[in-house]
Amino acid sequence: MRYVGNTVRDLQIAYIGGGSRGWAWGLMSDLALEEQMHGTIRLYDIDLEAAQHNEIIGNAVSAREEAIGKWNYVTVPSLKEALTGADFVIISILPGTFDEMDSDVHEPEKYGIYQSVGDTVGPGGLVRALRTIPMYVEFAEAIKEYCPNAWVINYTNPMTLCVRTLYEVYPEIKAFGCCHEVFGTQKLLGMMLEDLCDIKDVQRDEVDINVLGINHFTWLDKASYKGMDLMPLYKEFVDKYYETGFTGKSDSNWMNNSFESAQRVKFDLFKQYGLIAAAGDRHLAEFMPPWYLKNPDTVKGWMFGLTTVDYRKKELVERLERSARLVSGEEKLELKHSGEEGYLLMKSILGLGNRISNVNSPNRGQIPNLPLGVIVETNALFGRDKICPVVAGEIPGNVLSLVNRHVLNQENILKAAMTKDKELAFQAFMNDPLVTIDAKEGRKLFDTMLQRTKKYLPDWDI
Amino acid sequence: MRYVGNTVRDLQIAYIGGGSRGWAWGLMSDLALEEQMHGTIRLYDIDLEAAQHNEIIGNAVSAREEAIGKWNYVTVPSLKEALTGADFVIISILPGTFDEMDSDVHEPEKYGIYQSVGDTVGPGGLVRALRTIPMYVEFAEAIKEYCPNAWVINYTNPMTLCVRTLYEVYPEIKAFGCCHEVFGTQKLLGMMLEDLCDIKDVQRDEVDINVLGINHFTWLDKASYKGMDLMPLYKEFVDKYYETGFTGKSDSNWMNNSFESAQRVKFDLFKQYGLIAAAGDRHLAEFMPPWYLKNPDTVKGWMFGLTTVDYRKKELVERLERSARLVSGEEKLELKHSGEEGYLLMKSILGLGNRISNVNSPNRGQIPNLPLGVIVETNALFGRDKICPVVAGEIPGNVLSLVNRHVLNQENILKAAMTKDKELAFQAFMNDPLVTIDAKEGRKLFDTMLQRTKKYLPDWDI
Amino acid sequence: MRYVGNTVRDLQIAYIGGGSRGWAWGLMSDLALEEQMHGTIRLYDIDLEAAQHNEIIGNAVSAREEAIGKWNYVTVPSLKEALTGADFVIISILPGTFDEMDSDVHEPEKYGIYQSVGDTVGPGGLVRALRTIPMYVEFAEAIKEYCPNAWVINYTNPMTLCVRTLYEVYPEIKAFGCCHEVFGTQKLLGMMLEDLCDIKDVQRDEVDINVLGINHFTWLDKASYKGMDLMPLYKEFVDKYYETGFTGKSDSNWMNNSFESAQRVKFDLFKQYGLIAAAGDRHLAEFMPPWYLKNPDTVKGWMFGLTTVDYRKKELVERLERSARLVSGEEKLELKHSGEEGYLLMKSILGLGNRISNVNSPNRGQIPNLPLGVIVETNALFGRDKICPVVAGEIPGNVLSLVNRHVLNQENILKAAMTKDKELAFQAFMNDPLVTIDAKEGRKLFDTMLQRTKKYLPDWDI
Amino acid sequence: MRYVGNTVRDLQIAYIGGGSRGWAWGLMSDLALEEQMHGTIRLYDIDLEAAQHNEIIGNAVSAREEAIGKWNYVTVPSLKEALTGADFVIISILPGTFDEMDSDVHEPEKYGIYQSVGDTVGPGGLVRALRTIPMYVEFAEAIKEYCPNAWVINYTNPMTLCVRTLYEVYPEIKAFGCCHEVFGTQKLLGMMLEDLCDIKDVQRDEVDINVLGINHFTWLDKASYKGMDLMPLYKEFVDKYYETGFTGKSDSNWMNNSFESAQRVKFDLFKQYGLIAAAGDRHLAEFMPPWYLKNPDTVKGWMFGLTTVDYRKKELVERLERSARLVSGEEKLELKHSGEEGYLLMKSILGLGNRISNVNSPNRGQIPNLPLGVIVETNALFGRDKICPVVAGEIPGNVLSLVNRHVLNQENILKAAMTKDKELAFQAFMNDPLVTIDAKEGRKLFDTMLQRTKKYLPDWDI
Repeated sequence: MRYVGNTVRDLQIAYIGGGSRGWAWGLMSDLALEEQMHGTIRLYDIDLEAAQHNEIIGNAVSAREEAIGKWNYVTVPSLKEALTGADFVIISILPGTFDEMDSDVHEPEKYGIYQSVGDTVGPGGLVRALRTIPMYVEFAEAIKEYCPNAWVINYTNPMTLCVRTLYEVYPEIKAFGCCHEVFGTQKLLGMMLEDLCDIKDVQRDEVDINVLGINHFTWLDKASYKGMDLMPLYKEFVDKYYETGFTGKSDSNWMNNSFESAQRVKFDLFKQYGLIAAAGDRHLAEFMPPWYLKNPDTVKGWMFGLTTVDYRKKELVERLERSARLVSGEEKLELKHSGEEGYLLMKSILGLGNRISNVNSPNRGQIPNLPLGVIVETNALFGRDKICPVVAGEIPGNVLSLVNRHVLNQENILKAAMTKDKELAFQAFMNDPLVTIDAKEGRKLFDTMLQRTKKYLPDWDI
Repeated sequence: MRYVGNTVRDLQIAYIGGGSRGWAWGLMSDLALEEQMHGTIRLYDIDLEAAQHNEIIGNAVSAREEAIGKWNYVTVPSLKEALTGADFVIISILPGTFDEMDSDVHEPEKYGIYQSVGDTVGPGGLVRALRTIPMYVEFAEAIKEYCPNAWVINYTNPMTLCVRTLYEVYPEIKAFGCCHEVFGTQKLLGMMLEDLCDIKDVQRDEVDINVLGINHFTWLDKASYKGMDLMPLYKEFVDKYYETGFTGKSDSNWMNNSFESAQRVKFDLFKQYGLIAAAGDRHLAEFMPPWYLKNPDTVKGWMFGLTTVDYRKKELVERLERSARLVSGEEKLELKHSGEEGYLLMKSILGLGNRISNVNSPNRGQIPNLPLGVIVETNALFGRDKICPVVAGEIPGNVLSLVNRHVLNQENILKAAMTKDKELAFQAFMNDPLVTIDAKEGRKLFDTMLQRTKKYLPDWDI
Repeated sequence: MRYVGNTVRDLQIAYIGGGSRGWAWGLMSDLALEEQMHGTIRLYDIDLEAAQHNEIIGNAVSAREEAIGKWNYVTVPSLKEALTGADFVIISILPGTFDEMDSDVHEPEKYGIYQSVGDTVGPGGLVRALRTIPMYVEFAEAIKEYCPNAWVINYTNPMTLCVRTLYEVYPEIKAFGCCHEVFGTQKLLGMMLEDLCDIKDVQRDEVDINVLGINHFTWLDKASYKGMDLMPLYKEFVDKYYETGFTGKSDSNWMNNSFESAQRVKFDLFKQYGLIAAAGDRHLAEFMPPWYLKNPDTVKGWMFGLTTVDYRKKELVERLERSARLVSGEEKLELKHSGEEGYLLMKSILGLGNRISNVNSPNRGQIPNLPLGVIVETNALFGRDKICPVVAGEIPGNVLSLVNRHVLNQENILKAAMTKDKELAFQAFMNDPLVTIDAKEGRKLFDTMLQRTKKYLPDWDI
Repeated sequence: MRYVGNTVRDLQIAYIGGGSRGWAWGLMSDLALEEQMHGTIRLYDIDLEAAQHNEIIGNAVSAREEAIGKWNYVTVPSLKEALTGADFVIISILPGTFDEMDSDVHEPEKYGIYQSVGDTVGPGGLVRALRTIPMYVEFAEAIKEYCPNAWVINYTNPMTLCVRTLYEVYPEIKAFGCCHEVFGTQKLLGMMLEDLCDIKDVQRDEVDINVLGINHFTWLDKASYKGMDLMPLYKEFVDKYYETGFTGKSDSNWMNNSFESAQRVKFDLFKQYGLIAAAGDRHLAEFMPPWYLKNPDTVKGWMFGLTTVDYRKKELVERLERSARLVSGEEKLELKHSGEEGYLLMKSILGLGNRISNVNSPNRGQIPNLPLGVIVETNALFGRDKICPVVAGEIPGNVLSLVNRHVLNQENILKAAMTKDKELAFQAFMNDPLVTIDAKEGRKLFDTMLQRTKKYLPDWDI
């Protein structure tokens, strides 16, 4: 890459999982609308054809006049070719297929364990981690070999363990994980300002927050808007909407959209613990004992949805159709920002303006009462070739006991995956708050789930 | 006190809870059989009469010829008189009465939560802690005022929180907690040596162990007898007796004695986690999810007993009768060692020979992956006016996730008790592994239990 | 205070040392030029008349039309009146008089120890600390009593120990220390860009840096300007000017101005240690063994000045004359920014926009290889009612051995001052790198210096 | 090895540096007098002939009737043969020859820097470390390959860096360092008891101590004999002998024996710092600024000797002659204990009885205010296949500032040696308290010293 005035040219981005139908198009849009960066996106995917389709779609976008950021999309057939000489590496993959995800999410239901997402913690998230970690071992080793100085941005779940694996294998890696869940809570606080104070059009990043926790189980102990302390206001807000839930002016109702919620889990956590839980209710519920996920009726009572894999499969069909239209030119990608901050963080890392944003990165002391080295989510200062976490402070004791349990569990899963230690994996599995069945039942469930994801666990003795 | 040759004379011991029917008599016996220490025991008890009875019993013991340690037992009416000028303080009390203990142990049964002891963790242990902590605040303040340099030995449960409170209130205190549960595991290893290797008469302290964990949830990662590594042997032992349990030559069968067990919980924990759990099964089971305590049938299957409070009440009647006989002289106390090491540790602290023993004391780094300052149980070197914990090393990840949950929970209970924060107490209560009911049911149970122990929670808003 | 639109009104600022001739006028100027804050400055000073003069000067400034920030200056006779109800507290005092400073700086010269400033470390800085700490104990206690929630900004030297004392006495205080020394290095890097790359008019805060160390002994391990890495450039710059020094276009030549330097010490430290030392040469030299301060000739060779106290006294006369002119109206204060960032940081704390700046605050993990709790200087994120240090990372081993020595020394001085422990103070004194005399000579010097500052050491046994 | 009753047979000990004339003979004696261990000593030395001589001497000892421990001494020609199958590895070498030691000790004298030993810190000790570390890298790699489970006992100086290197290269190594300097202080306290209290024949290990610090710069904050606190007694002792020094009934006067002292340095350190420095004065003096080593007259005033290398060379001649006599049988080794505890610690590690002794091992928390992982000297509990350090507690602030400087310096030397970084080595060299010359002079001295030890610094760019 090289700097020309205030722009960077010839930037080389390796995109692992570049065949994505959906997320990739958001990235294309973000890059096309940003004039300070230009270069090449190397699309790498185990589904080569999918990558080739995105090559066509991406180059079509770039050719359009309103695309002020000019990018060349090329499909590459190997990790080596994707990575060699890369300035940035973006990783956004689906670990396994919907078949494995089906097992992750729905097999536990036979034992009375319901999960709203199944990609982070809970029996599904942990088994997903077991099959994802070997993939990330491979990525980390390849990055170490082919582009040791590249910056690596991860978007895949389970976020914490993906990023953790990269550092475990290659401790000097410059990697971090981006997640937009916290943004949703900032937006909610904006809606609250309109609802309670009639302050309109609050921009998400005008809501200043202190973030602490782990991905999808992040908490805010400070929130403000200009001079206003939003914590007492949020108390009022929770009191107002605790029973009914709050849906704002959202088009999508939680009853019709399994990705939506009425924030009741979030409100309940605030009432109990005094901090603002800052992720979607579907994610938050999975970190707790089965208070919110006892059974489908309980879930309905808390006004959020269980995202079924059938739903995801149906949605995929639509995405494939859309991909075909975009490739053929029948449909034109609408250029608008995706809501992700990835491209802004890249700008900061290139020296084009500092930025504070929440990020998943190793604990270097930013949360002093979690172990050093585990992946935490806090604010960080992004600047030229650096990410400096902002000291978020200690997690209060009541919330710490919730968070730390998952931290230790995830460390055990990491170790189990690295050493192919089935027993250790099972111990972590049994220690998950959603797994309330006894050891015998647990063993049956665990064994079945492992069998179903077996082909992604090479050399395991199962 | 003063040193005369190899003996110490005029030692002043304050005994809080000195009216005890049972434990006190063991102490009298231990002291009578030890010739290097002599002095005065100041018996303090809220049940003054009980203390006076022990004064009679103790002095009768001391008057006997075979009593080579000579002690003067005196009843004192106030903490101040007990403590002023004391060299040692022994605390061994019953926090509350059997009525509160009845609520601790049996109220949760109405919600399907069974506890085998109910004095450490679990809903009963945590509520017991809430009422015990204020008592220990008072003790710590009095010690700080009246005998700041005395050594304080605690025997009361919940051990961890009793000792933790003493340090919280008076950080410079020289206090530690003694518990004989680990001894039982040493004895079990001795029996194993006879059973598997035909080595007879192994003395408990010939079994060398490395202890790590928290009281009643201690673990051994190393155990040896002379040159033999006992860890592989224990694996063999567990395999042999996993299904049937092991009762040795014990007179008391677990089926007839609710304090006994057949070690099956211990064996199961070893099979799962690879370390030797070093406490009685009744205690160990309470730290886990309700795998072993699901219901009375499950308990029976694991071959240990639920100690009912009715049983304790019945037993008390017998103790009272025995006390009367001892006071009247109708019965004579048999002089034999109690099995407690307290008197030996006092000797070490007086400079009469160093000793290594397990102890409950603040974590100064002896378990590097638990928070500093919490009370842990490890070996320590006892010497003149010092206790130096022995570095036990890190707790392995799989066990750490079990132990740390209780560590954080107990810290929350401490804070809740110190600040009279009912909500925080409830959060810790709900986070206990045995409490698998939902928040609504949990609230009902918690409120009832607090009401039942209300008189020991002065100034709480309940 | 209250918020009106984007402004804050009725802000209450207590200014301890409000009689200052010089620094106070800069603050007046900064505040007058800032339209988002308005309120009252309560001037408190042990020299009441000096405060009254500033009241006149300040109100005259505020009355001027170009003063868009409107402030009411009032003299208050006591700390209590200054602090009660204050939103901010600014502390900028001279601890003692020039007589004590004379002893600090010049008494050691009789033993061959030269100091260029004498207010931070070295024999002078340490003795200055001993007399300053009791004053800060008083401030901290008063703040705790009268305005426990106020934000406290310290400008007094020794910076580290002033801020450290505030936290020692009142751990919950919201205090930080501001120092502009790092700004000077940012400016130097800007001049370098002009000198080497012909890039003109680089603004100080466009030079992005990572700051780590302690006040006046801060280091940069990263520096960039937009996309440019300034570290290799600085190497080139040092090579170019190592022998001759660099004075830029500065009006003031180091030979004529004892506050200036030609950066040779800074260049030499870079050559040796590989990091950019980020304070003035006069300060840096005092933290090292007497390599740069061996004698006046050596100092001249390194092209910086020894600031004599005579010079300061002369300068004070000029300041007093200027004060008189400002009071009488003969002279009008020119309104221009002082170069300090204090008013900007206050804005951030009020919620009027986040800001990253370097700050002296307790180590909460921002420098993981210095002890927790000591005062370090790093970047921090300033936002509404919060300062979150930015994790600066570990100090490299070679520099750590230099920095840590002072950290431990300053901790010993703190403890000595808090407990009036003359021996401990002496031990720290002897451990200062500039004190290369033997213990006997050292004792004589130390005793003399203490005698000379005796009236500020109440209750010391000297 | 195998256990037969209470003995161990066929123990395999690799002895690196097995050609030693002196220390080896002490070991032979210790082993011959101990009946519980028997086996083979594999003598390895770069001076093969010297090893062969010891083979003869050792086997002659073992053949004697009074030798109750039976050992077979064999010379082996390679590390591989020494280590393969070894249960213990003893390392006791001279790194380099007296020629290099001559440079270490005497070259600095040309710059006015005097050293009494020159093997630990100071310019000599640091340069010695630079040439020793590569040897220990080789040992560690060989141990990792050939006997990864062996216990490794180091006796070579610089102790701290030898042991530190072993762990740096092979973190799982089971290594520790033994040094008898602390024993000398225990003996001194015994002599004190006779001198002040007329208590005779105090055995060294009856003096109970708490040890904290680093090798040759260890400190005692607690010392007792039976019930007596020796700290106040030591104050009295120091007051009595501060001016005159104390020589006891020692045959060897410090004036005639450069290894002796009159303890005045130790007494002076106590007066200043309040703790008992627990090493010989010759070692202690080297850790301080040149207060005690300013010049030969100063040294004489403090009543200790400068050990010249000429003296060592002369002594070697005598040792060689004695070796010849022992080989020929002209002289017979007197069997008596050497005073080293090594064989006792081996017994403990074999499970033949636990033991507390001081040891050099990685800081796992035993000194909480020194960095984790550096080699510290504290007590430890030795048991079957384990060494558990005893928590010694924090080093008080005044002594910490002395100790920590060397800790950081030695870490820098380690890193410099591992990476062949001459500049970093120089920075550490200049940071040594004895090096008070300026950077220019320092550079000359350092370069000369490196040149003189060049052949032991392969691949260095010097």
